Amino acid sequence: MKPKLVFKYLSLFFILLCLIQTIAPAAASSYITPTGEEGLTQDTSMIQDEMHKFDRNMDVWFMLMLVAFLMLFIKKFEWGVCLATLLTLAGSFISHSAIRQFVLGQAWNQDFIIMGIFCAITVVIAIGVFLGTIKTWQYLLVGILFAPAWLAIEWFMFTYLEGVVDPGGSMLVHMVAAYWGWGALIAIQEKRSFEEPFDTTTHSVSFVWLASMLLFVLWPSFVTALLPGDQVTWGMITTYMAGLGSVVSAYLTCVAFEKKVNPLVYTYALLAGMVSIGSPLISVGPWTALGIGLVAGIISATCFIKLHPWLCEKAGVFDVMGVHNLHGIPGIWGAVAGAIFAAGFVNIISLVGVIVISLVTGGITGIILKATRGEMEQKDLFSDDSIFLGWHPD
Amino acid sequence: MKPKLVFKYLSLFFILLCLIQTIAPAAASSYITPTGEEGLTQDTSMIQDEMHKFDRNMDVWFMLMLVAFLMLFIKKFEWGVCLATLLTLAGSFISHSAIRQFVLGQAWNQDFIIMGIFCAITVVIAIGVFLGTIKTWQYLLVGILFAPAWLAIEWFMFTYLEGVVDPGGSMLVHMVAAYWGWGALIAIQEKRSFEEPFDTTTHSVSFVWLASMLLFVLWPSFVTALLPGDQVTWGMITTYMAGLGSVVSAYLTCVAFEKKVNPLVYTYALLAGMVSIGSPLISVGPWTALGIGLVAGIISATCFIKLHPWLCEKAGVFDVMGVHNLHGIPGIWGAVAGAIFAAGFVNIISLVGVIVISLVTGGITGIILKATRGEMEQKDLFSDDSIFLGWHPD
Amino acid sequence: MKPKLVFKYLSLFFILLCLIQTIAPAAASSYITPTGEEGLTQDTSMIQDEMHKFDRNMDVWFMLMLVAFLMLFIKKFEWGVCLATLLTLAGSFISHSAIRQFVLGQAWNQDFIIMGIFCAITVVIAIGVFLGTIKTWQYLLVGILFAPAWLAIEWFMFTYLEGVVDPGGSMLVHMVAAYWGWGALIAIQEKRSFEEPFDTTTHSVSFVWLASMLLFVLWPSFVTALLPGDQVTWGMITTYMAGLGSVVSAYLTCVAFEKKVNPLVYTYALLAGMVSIGSPLISVGPWTALGIGLVAGIISATCFIKLHPWLCEKAGVFDVMGVHNLHGIPGIWGAVAGAIFAAGFVNIISLVGVIVISLVTGGITGIILKATRGEMEQKDLFSDDSIFLGWHPD
Repeated sequence: MKPKLVFKYLSLFFILLCLIQTIAPAAASSYITPTGEEGLTQDTSMIQDEMHKFDRNMDVWFMLMLVAFLMLFIKKFEWGVCLATLLTLAGSFISHSAIRQFVLGQAWNQDFIIMGIFCAITVVIAIGVFLGTIKTWQYLLVGILFAPAWLAIEWFMFTYLEGVVDPGGSMLVHMVAAYWGWGALIAIQEKRSFEEPFDTTTHSVSFVWLASMLLFVLWPSFVTALLPGDQVTWGMITTYMAGLGSVVSAYLTCVAFEKKVNPLVYTYALLAGMVSIGSPLISVGPWTALGIGLVAGIISATCFIKLHPWLCEKAGVFDVMGVHNLHGIPGIWGAVAGAIFAAGFVNIISLVGVIVISLVTGGITGIILKATRGEMEQKDLFSDDSIFLGWHPD
Repeated sequence: MKPKLVFKYLSLFFILLCLIQTIAPAAASSYITPTGEEGLTQDTSMIQDEMHKFDRNMDVWFMLMLVAFLMLFIKKFEWGVCLATLLTLAGSFISHSAIRQFVLGQAWNQDFIIMGIFCAITVVIAIGVFLGTIKTWQYLLVGILFAPAWLAIEWFMFTYLEGVVDPGGSMLVHMVAAYWGWGALIAIQEKRSFEEPFDTTTHSVSFVWLASMLLFVLWPSFVTALLPGDQVTWGMITTYMAGLGSVVSAYLTCVAFEKKVNPLVYTYALLAGMVSIGSPLISVGPWTALGIGLVAGIISATCFIKLHPWLCEKAGVFDVMGVHNLHGIPGIWGAVAGAIFAAGFVNIISLVGVIVISLVTGGITGIILKATRGEMEQKDLFSDDSIFLGWHPD
Repeated sequence: MKPKLVFKYLSLFFILLCLIQTIAPAAASSYITPTGEEGLTQDTSMIQDEMHKFDRNMDVWFMLMLVAFLMLFIKKFEWGVCLATLLTLAGSFISHSAIRQFVLGQAWNQDFIIMGIFCAITVVIAIGVFLGTIKTWQYLLVGILFAPAWLAIEWFMFTYLEGVVDPGGSMLVHMVAAYWGWGALIAIQEKRSFEEPFDTTTHSVSFVWLASMLLFVLWPSFVTALLPGDQVTWGMITTYMAGLGSVVSAYLTCVAFEKKVNPLVYTYALLAGMVSIGSPLISVGPWTALGIGLVAGIISATCFIKLHPWLCEKAGVFDVMGVHNLHGIPGIWGAVAGAIFAAGFVNIISLVGVIVISLVTGGITGIILKATRGEMEQKDLFSDDSIFLGWHPD
């Protein structure tokens, strides 16, 4: 598809949205948070809850942007990752909002925006699986197509099933990201990724360190974004303890396997504890959380070093950012830990369902992506040069 | 002027300020936020309002620093941008605070600091117009001279005029920054900027991506910093929707004009929606906001690509960072949108007045800058080497 | 010690911690913040206080990570600084939490975590003194050993002594960091640091600018983290004013001494005002704070340029990051200012006690580090190459 056509159709799409707004105008005053309404706890009003969620909500947007920098280590494909992230965000957030307002009939408030950015961060993680192998405008399409799939999975987990425990998104965010991405990956069938050298530079990897370390910091906002005020401190305690567990164990695992530390394993695997604590978040104490994170770090680093090459060869496709090793397997470990410490067997049913629905909906998206991608030369894969003016290797 | 003389006079200035404090000491206890006072909404006390403003206030300081990194793409002029930003911040914030306390007689609280950092971020954006063409110590002077001009414009907009709608600063921040900067630019008359090649490196531009993406995230704090708690969620909704509009439309516009994306157009123009929503912020719903942002992104990218070279040639001076294309024109579009959706004609009067006062006061500052700058060789323009020890090209 | 042995013993340590948790399980519900409890001010409940502390707490974690990037300028030793920071954080936070819960019997809440991250940030600053001269796994050990020393100093300052004024940590954080680090430095006796050229690159120093400027922004959260809501605005006012003082005076001092600005002096010294305001934080008004910061910036920059080479030569050991010049001397100036404006002589007693206890406990740690370090070749000092796979100079 030519840029001008894309431009035309997308403009039409957005003009349509604006017209809907004009025909059925949301009275502006409906967005004012009403005074005198009770909040989520006895001690807070709705206004106070909204104001606190504002901060945590914004932290999640911050994290979404950091995910871009977490994936920015390929020397010849850095700016493209940022652009892909932004377009995926726009597509998914707008699509999610449109469905939630016009199909599900929900009103805009902090929870509405938080669900939207959760949806967006999930698909931004997911594109890591096949990043650099589709055309730039397709990231917008990926976002638009992802939102309904994600809303369906949310419905499956929390409306169809009962009693699933996943406040911090081990399943709804991390597992969905990994398996939806893999569904698309398998459908796209881009074999040439195996031939890429993925050269790095010192500072492309320094940006990854920065992103990983700040994601660590902001994680408590992510897992507690929707919780009432009296559970927020608790969520922060277990999240940081789980994260510190994987900070230590991922390091020791790297050294045990390879003597030296692979920074592109460690900067990811150090976050595995936080991925895993998402499900058992408020069902365990700090030291159990530390233990869960300790195990997660070992699992994740081992997957990067041992499982990843084997699995990609076996599947015949290449998980570019190794999303499965940070979000897939540690997500499963989190869901299992949630089953052990809180929810019981229903969390296992949810886990299986999430894998199946994600793979299927991801696969369908992958087929659409492949069909609309057109020709893409080897030199245009993972290539800022093909997207940007003024790019040049240093 | 020699550094030692600068040192001497500025020391005297600050010692004077400290003496004022000793002669008229603000009783320390006057800074404690009083308990039992009502807040801005029925559900919050003054203490709670202050604590929430603390967070949004700090986000604006964060944004000010990010503006430095947004301007850091010139290979041989990176650290100097950071230093210029810090000195401009110091000069303007201190000058603004002194005027507000000692001339206007206002007490220090969150609103006081927020107005100070708004003033500072405005002038930090404004220096982007002529960055690299004045001497380092002069940035301190720029800040000191800017504060009274900004306070005069604030008086014009909200005291002299009545009914102007600009909660998020489309006029008071963005338009003032662009036209005050252009006033100074025209007065300084530095023609040699046209000859600079403005070489970039991969990572100098990666810092710009980081800055732009984080500015996007933090923007809702900026536009809602002074609003009561019940309007904060609303401000966040429209800001993010407007921003997502320009994320998409700036990309499509870049591709439509130049086939590939110029990162130094896109990383700026993607923020245009947020500049524009400042005025109609809480007078429109989410989908109208999306539309406003969509238009803003098209306008801004078009200005960067088409208007910028023409205007600079016509004016005979070079807007170094293209401030006019992100803050000037999209600021005007925001003021007009504010007129359409809320304020009516008074917003247009304000718009015209802001341009005139900004150009005039900026021009006066430019004359002072030119008079005190002394000789500046071509090699000292845009040059870290002339400012810093230990600078070396990689 | 071999990695595998380290792995074994540390695994045992953590398994032990998890067992303790199983034997004496903290009832999960004990972490829910109780409703209906009074907060620190008449206008806030305990839940509201906890939610506000959540934000400031997280900002301190953010700052800890930024400290890593503040120390990342050595071309051949960048990623190692990040890894060292993470391991030091994990060791100290876990050790601190274990002592506080199991020895001191305190319950987990925001104050508990905030004290933990204060402890961690102190030791992360402290390792800057001897960074790059010990083995990677030893940073974990440093963290574990530091926590009891820090808790002892806290006891000395606030339980043994009475009336010490140090809300923002001029003594408990900055002076402890500097003198504990120097204690370890003197014990380690690594003379080869003098021979290192410490080459930088443009962007390694740009990361330092970013870190310094964001530390400046977040500092008010650090100094007010434990304060009640009615003093938070006040703490922000004096912190920013003191910081702006050193932003200006550090610049002028650099220029006065060396004509050009040394970025590795300025990016540190610009923060000196904020170090110094920690003690007199809520005992002075904004203009006095500006004066304190003004003096701090002059002192710090002068120490970097004049005291540092002399002191290191005299002591026969090299303070790698110049921690003493930002945290030591400005910390003393802060403690003295706290004595002048608030606490009187007891702050001086505290100051002396902090130096002595820090040097002694740091020295003991240094002896342990030296004994367990084993051989370390010259080429392995300050070397990412010896720690990481895939490192290569650009």
